[in-house]
Amino acid sequence: MIELKASQGAGADAPKQGVVQAAVIGATGYAGCELLTLLARHPAASVTCLMSSGRDGKKVFPIEDSHPRLRGLFSVQCEPLDVEQVINGEPDVVFLATPHETSHQIVPQLLESGLRVIDLSAAFRLKQQPAYSHWYDFEHHAGDALAEAVYGIPEFDAQRIGSARLVANPGCYPTSVILALAPLLKAGWVNVSAGIIADSKSGVTGAGRKPTEKLHFPEVNENLRAYGLFRHRHLPEMLQELELSSNDFTFTPHLLPITRGILTTIYLRLSSPRKLAEIEGFYKEVYAAAPMVRVYPAGTLPEILGVANTQFADIGFALDEATGRLILVSAIDNLGKGAAGQAVQNMNVMFGLPQQTGLL
Amino acid sequence: MIELKASQGAGADAPKQGVVQAAVIGATGYAGCELLTLLARHPAASVTCLMSSGRDGKKVFPIEDSHPRLRGLFSVQCEPLDVEQVINGEPDVVFLATPHETSHQIVPQLLESGLRVIDLSAAFRLKQQPAYSHWYDFEHHAGDALAEAVYGIPEFDAQRIGSARLVANPGCYPTSVILALAPLLKAGWVNVSAGIIADSKSGVTGAGRKPTEKLHFPEVNENLRAYGLFRHRHLPEMLQELELSSNDFTFTPHLLPITRGILTTIYLRLSSPRKLAEIEGFYKEVYAAAPMVRVYPAGTLPEILGVANTQFADIGFALDEATGRLILVSAIDNLGKGAAGQAVQNMNVMFGLPQQTGLL
Amino acid sequence: MIELKASQGAGADAPKQGVVQAAVIGATGYAGCELLTLLARHPAASVTCLMSSGRDGKKVFPIEDSHPRLRGLFSVQCEPLDVEQVINGEPDVVFLATPHETSHQIVPQLLESGLRVIDLSAAFRLKQQPAYSHWYDFEHHAGDALAEAVYGIPEFDAQRIGSARLVANPGCYPTSVILALAPLLKAGWVNVSAGIIADSKSGVTGAGRKPTEKLHFPEVNENLRAYGLFRHRHLPEMLQELELSSNDFTFTPHLLPITRGILTTIYLRLSSPRKLAEIEGFYKEVYAAAPMVRVYPAGTLPEILGVANTQFADIGFALDEATGRLILVSAIDNLGKGAAGQAVQNMNVMFGLPQQTGLL
Amino acid sequence: MIELKASQGAGADAPKQGVVQAAVIGATGYAGCELLTLLARHPAASVTCLMSSGRDGKKVFPIEDSHPRLRGLFSVQCEPLDVEQVINGEPDVVFLATPHETSHQIVPQLLESGLRVIDLSAAFRLKQQPAYSHWYDFEHHAGDALAEAVYGIPEFDAQRIGSARLVANPGCYPTSVILALAPLLKAGWVNVSAGIIADSKSGVTGAGRKPTEKLHFPEVNENLRAYGLFRHRHLPEMLQELELSSNDFTFTPHLLPITRGILTTIYLRLSSPRKLAEIEGFYKEVYAAAPMVRVYPAGTLPEILGVANTQFADIGFALDEATGRLILVSAIDNLGKGAAGQAVQNMNVMFGLPQQTGLL
Repeated sequence: MIELKASQGAGADAPKQGVVQAAVIGATGYAGCELLTLLARHPAASVTCLMSSGRDGKKVFPIEDSHPRLRGLFSVQCEPLDVEQVINGEPDVVFLATPHETSHQIVPQLLESGLRVIDLSAAFRLKQQPAYSHWYDFEHHAGDALAEAVYGIPEFDAQRIGSARLVANPGCYPTSVILALAPLLKAGWVNVSAGIIADSKSGVTGAGRKPTEKLHFPEVNENLRAYGLFRHRHLPEMLQELELSSNDFTFTPHLLPITRGILTTIYLRLSSPRKLAEIEGFYKEVYAAAPMVRVYPAGTLPEILGVANTQFADIGFALDEATGRLILVSAIDNLGKGAAGQAVQNMNVMFGLPQQTGLL
Repeated sequence: MIELKASQGAGADAPKQGVVQAAVIGATGYAGCELLTLLARHPAASVTCLMSSGRDGKKVFPIEDSHPRLRGLFSVQCEPLDVEQVINGEPDVVFLATPHETSHQIVPQLLESGLRVIDLSAAFRLKQQPAYSHWYDFEHHAGDALAEAVYGIPEFDAQRIGSARLVANPGCYPTSVILALAPLLKAGWVNVSAGIIADSKSGVTGAGRKPTEKLHFPEVNENLRAYGLFRHRHLPEMLQELELSSNDFTFTPHLLPITRGILTTIYLRLSSPRKLAEIEGFYKEVYAAAPMVRVYPAGTLPEILGVANTQFADIGFALDEATGRLILVSAIDNLGKGAAGQAVQNMNVMFGLPQQTGLL
Repeated sequence: MIELKASQGAGADAPKQGVVQAAVIGATGYAGCELLTLLARHPAASVTCLMSSGRDGKKVFPIEDSHPRLRGLFSVQCEPLDVEQVINGEPDVVFLATPHETSHQIVPQLLESGLRVIDLSAAFRLKQQPAYSHWYDFEHHAGDALAEAVYGIPEFDAQRIGSARLVANPGCYPTSVILALAPLLKAGWVNVSAGIIADSKSGVTGAGRKPTEKLHFPEVNENLRAYGLFRHRHLPEMLQELELSSNDFTFTPHLLPITRGILTTIYLRLSSPRKLAEIEGFYKEVYAAAPMVRVYPAGTLPEILGVANTQFADIGFALDEATGRLILVSAIDNLGKGAAGQAVQNMNVMFGLPQQTGLL
Repeated sequence: MIELKASQGAGADAPKQGVVQAAVIGATGYAGCELLTLLARHPAASVTCLMSSGRDGKKVFPIEDSHPRLRGLFSVQCEPLDVEQVINGEPDVVFLATPHETSHQIVPQLLESGLRVIDLSAAFRLKQQPAYSHWYDFEHHAGDALAEAVYGIPEFDAQRIGSARLVANPGCYPTSVILALAPLLKAGWVNVSAGIIADSKSGVTGAGRKPTEKLHFPEVNENLRAYGLFRHRHLPEMLQELELSSNDFTFTPHLLPITRGILTTIYLRLSSPRKLAEIEGFYKEVYAAAPMVRVYPAGTLPEILGVANTQFADIGFALDEATGRLILVSAIDNLGKGAAGQAVQNMNVMFGLPQQTGLL
């Protein structure tokens, strides 16, 4: 069984001023906005630096020009990305909500300067350096940073996250799949060779803020589409963390006509007969000390409405006891537990705060 | 391989007046509205009787009181259900968009009077009479009618539909699953014992017009929920038509925050290695003469936007050739090919009209 | 009172082959798709030429590559815009669903070649040539064409449309405002100097298919925004047709999180006391012979659901008899009566067909 | 000019335990859920009692059975309404998110017992007792409570709210209208006799959680409807607080296909010529010390996306300087500043906390 390190992380460093001083790079995207919303409300964090990596020519602007909902929350202005300036500000932690290539490029310098980094991009999630040219269209040259990066699911790895200098914040789909599936796999309860299928449905913010024809309102509204069959970028991340072969695991994402939220329906066969109550008891035990994961009682199932605009991951299940077919249903907010919420949870662990601080 | 009877049905009877005179019972529901929209536009049909089975006390009312979009399209008023009156009107065909129990109750009398019936409810879809008390909470007493009912997928059974007196119009989910899966199963290309999974996502009109807390706008909007796991009413209908055991077939419906449309993602393993082009060719051949089914070229996939407010069923696929994992994606409008469109297509077959008449 | 020319237009030309042969230029936009949907279903029209004015490099492609919903409906391929080729095809009518500048540029040549044109862009709607540089950012050089263009609201001008060579198909907002307001203004029942306010709310397809940040799904969904206050492009078109001064008429559009439909709420004061029944009677008389306008009985109001995916304009009203404050509510589908539906209605008039042909 | 009492309320009582102990009655509705979300996050409040006034027979249940999103946030169970039990619990404040009639019935007893009450229903908003039988279908018998009730807009009346025993929390539409309009009216800048029009558009949660046909998902989705013209219940509340005659003020609500948020577009004429900058300066001064109201710079306008899931009211404007036509646009979340957010803001004022505590 997974050893959960749950609520209290190691907390290698205490923040300098009592509150964690955070720099947020990539503030103009959706994950950036969510991060800022959470940090504005966080009782032990403060945003001291806001930067945008976009090339829109604006020198310095108030963040509400990009995110009207943040009007009135921050006095610090948003500036163009300048790594030296970040370093000189000596933040306790740097959040990167930047494109993969940008994160890949600036993380080494940030680490060298002694800063701790939580990267929301995929640039440090895959352990195999060559995988980046295949899945992300860039050559990865930051091998040292990659080697020390900790894949940041606080429920599973709080100890290492607590002392990490670089946390690779998981992808939204992988979070929804791994939290539901990993415990059962590690326990050996899954008949892996019978095949596992994860059918995911995600809101549109998961695809970012750049307008494209596929994400134009009338192309998404009143629609549902499957995409990336057998070849979505998040697949290798799941296989790596779940230690599965691509032959045994099928992942199909779908684009929902909603702003935020992911529901994943996972189909598997148990390796030996179980009762539904046994499954429920197992998950309740696994996540007993995990404040951001909620296990649903048998007979009820999570839905997106229960997690949207929250930082929770919800997990439920249905079992055909006669055949051992188990269906896991997990729900997260892709911007919450699937991005910014998990990033702040990782920050909490890194600075010795209770995991749920500022996240309820 | 399935023998498609495609475009021309047998057409046992010619309509009396050159155009098919239709009675529509259950006019105030969503399927009723869609039926009326299609019949208003149909070049060879005319609505001569409109009735509501609801108990709302209204004696006679213009149909636009129930469906504003139909204002101006019908001069005939909507009346309370009266079987005698239907019979006296001597329509060529009676459409029932009524609750299961109502259809079950009135069909025998309609048949006795020599009328032909297309029933959109589930009352005559399941061949096993006792199944109704298990799946639909009523005892089925109309065994004779049940015995002669033809399950109405015109692509597969035009011959029998053409001469049928009672057509059981298929459910929306079953239509989306059967059109995609049946050809491959019949051809023996599926490794059935490896398990087949149909993960369906449906718009809300599929659940009818009766307001409930689960279908209240804020409970559906920006949400997605799975429901009826291992026990949805449409499961036995699929098992029956696909000749599958419930051990081998898993069906999970989800409620989408959209008005109309179903996307079904079907996971299966091929019984022997195939190329993607082979799959595509097979489906194109199967449906070559079927005007209401559209097979997508490899590399593209159907989506709900392509079928909403149409009467088509769209089918596409993705294959992992190395492992034989095949994913079928089908899309229909649940009110179109999943209900009213298919009902009118059945009517066309019954009266010797080209299947697509009035449906493009 | 307005003289309605209603159902039968003059129909200067009979179509050459019994059915109207239509060329559709600008087929890849939303109005183009709607036009094609309507023409595919039209009993007396046929699409003989499909062209796209976009510069996407594709030479020739099946229209379903752009609009999946049209798969299987057209055998003719979509080609890049080539005016000579259009002319050589000798269509009975050319529909332009092109950008303003493109219409402006090609209409003169089409007219010279003897073709009849229905232009869905704004290029020939404003009578004052200089207005284009102010409102539409281009210099208008096609003065002759402009002079002969007929502003195409068939309810008001069927006679001239019937013999027109160039019909300027009205904008969506103007259609929703003019149909509701013009009768009352012409009758002198409005206290114009007290000010008239039109508060419109439109679905997103009205803004076209080009992806922009403002129309990116998560920026529109669960949102409502007002825009273009006192300066929307459709304002001069309304002022011109309603013969109003900009001082007396305020128009505010809002962007709704829906795909299609416009609801306009118009506030005015009557010039003398009236009863509600009088207003209702007046509108019923005005539109008695207009098959595509539906007047709602007092006590009920149109809503978008009643017109979406239809070609109707619905009009209703509420009156405070004590003060003479009248509220008009009109609803159209912006792609239907607000664009393609009206264009086909104009075509019907031009070729002597009943106005509603193919539009119910 | 309005005298703003802004951030610090009088705070008649300090909470007994350092944190404000709150009872929430009516916990199962949408406003109740929002209240609980805010209170769970509030640094100086604690929920000690949860009750439902519904007659669903359930004795005691965990609140997540009603609101899945609240799972894990409260240890206290939800109980059936029992006024004695509330009183015995000696909470610092009682929030009523109950139906009007329930609030009307229980408030006198709560006050008698010395409790302080914030009532989110309309039961104590209208000063004229007879108005209730006209607008709310019940006879009002709690004249004493009505007499002492303070209409709770903290930006305008913090002094009286600070010492109030009973706060009548304003309606959602009135909040959106009054915050935008009151300052200008009080300053005498409005030509009132020229008429003022408030065209409001609201999300569906404003209509409550009880399922009805009008609020059934497919009846709202992809729709917009106007309702309650000249006779919406919130009209008398606005007239009372704005001191306007019904002849001069027109209010039209519309139902948006979104879950939460109100946008109100207000049309008026200035009583004398002003520059846009003057208007902006005026509002910035009025709301300088109001942390929950955000005034938009000229040239930008609030939209629902900027306030949804926040507790802010946003106000912007556009002016036609030549004619003095001013358009005010205000945006709130109907469950936030329009209900629960304002209720908590009132609580903050009542207990001497900064107004924005727990609301950012």
